[in-house]
Amino acid sequence: MNDSKRAVILVSGGLDSTTVLALVKARGYDCYTLSFDYGQRHRAELIAAQRVSAALGDVEHKVVNLNLDSIGGSALTDTSIAVPEEETVGVPITYVPARNTIFLSIALGWAEVLGASDIFIGVNAVDYSGYPDCRPEYIAAFESMANLATRAGVEGQATTIHAPLMEMGKNDIIRAGMALGIDYSLTVSCYQATENGLACGRCESCRLRRQGFLDAKVADPTRYQH
Amino acid sequence: MNDSKRAVILVSGGLDSTTVLALVKARGYDCYTLSFDYGQRHRAELIAAQRVSAALGDVEHKVVNLNLDSIGGSALTDTSIAVPEEETVGVPITYVPARNTIFLSIALGWAEVLGASDIFIGVNAVDYSGYPDCRPEYIAAFESMANLATRAGVEGQATTIHAPLMEMGKNDIIRAGMALGIDYSLTVSCYQATENGLACGRCESCRLRRQGFLDAKVADPTRYQH
Repeated sequence: MNDSKRAVILVSGGLDSTTVLALVKARGYDCYTLSFDYGQRHRAELIAAQRVSAALGDVEHKVVNLNLDSIGGSALTDTSIAVPEEETVGVPITYVPARNTIFLSIALGWAEVLGASDIFIGVNAVDYSGYPDCRPEYIAAFESMANLATRAGVEGQATTIHAPLMEMGKNDIIRAGMALGIDYSLTVSCYQATENGLACGRCESCRLRRQGFLDAKVADPTRYQH
Repeated sequence: MNDSKRAVILVSGGLDSTTVLALVKARGYDCYTLSFDYGQRHRAELIAAQRVSAALGDVEHKVVNLNLDSIGGSALTDTSIAVPEEETVGVPITYVPARNTIFLSIALGWAEVLGASDIFIGVNAVDYSGYPDCRPEYIAAFESMANLATRAGVEGQATTIHAPLMEMGKNDIIRAGMALGIDYSLTVSCYQATENGLACGRCESCRLRRQGFLDAKVADPTRYQH
């Protein structure tokens, strides 16, 4: 007999998903964390994901290999496309086609094997202005589809896709995480971090993160290259 | 200026997806075929997928690597679970958790990179009695989600998920394929085929296929081990 509940949490090693993991842990779930080696140029994030998962006490951290670089179409997986260091309009070139759909799908498969009904993803309001697969209506549609896709769904065990940061700005996320005792120096958000996890300070992800710490009035623990 | 339309077709090397590919080709699409090296025990299907794609004149055949065996939960990816050789009740143990969702998600990503609005999958009525992710309501829900997930969706280019075999029995599929000139000896359906593509003749996939040829009154070209 097992009274604890299992959750699958997508973790990238970045600020947002680390905060989600801390929130889920605080809710008493057994945490199964999932990361992807998908050909991303910022390899330091995988190391950070491992570090953060261990620090926050996950039950298991799984890394699924998936060569999305063979599909391309994004500055994050195609080294011939530069990561922009200025603000862009519309869907950013750092958008990886269908990435959240692919990641959530694999999380769905693992959740089914684990008997977990809850999947958590760290998408949030700051991102969803640009990335289509960060919007609340997208998350709701994925959940509807998921409950038709699986054996668990057929047998009446509904899956919930949780996006607890959806309505939060970066500063709110940072404040929530600080309240849970997160050491954000463990996390890497930069799209083009060095192998040692040093951030460029210039890409969009770095700019949003830096501004978040400023707005939250929290000292920025990020290790920058410059 | 390019007047041709591009389609992404999920191909497994089996009878159903090969028939889909022939149907799509006959409709005049430029065919981009997609297969997965996902840790399946029936490796011969990947060789068959390559062979069939080439024979039917695809523009490009892509194999995405994805270690679903690390998730397990299916006789097709976990060698410690035997492939059943008798009829089973409910969702079969050969069901791979969320497999079609994962495959369609990656197809969605590739379609977006290619500028293709049409994705084809060979699920059909014979399968959907047992596999949740082969039902028409599932396919419709995936399509709704897909159109919220992508840059193309946001910019008004709707994606259609086509399941042209959905209402067809195995014998109808075989007759349709024969009319298009498919050489089914190129295909491998067996869940536990040998490396040379010889079928066991006993697993559920073999039984359905064999019965299909009988019902269609077409000589069965399958190469069996026995």
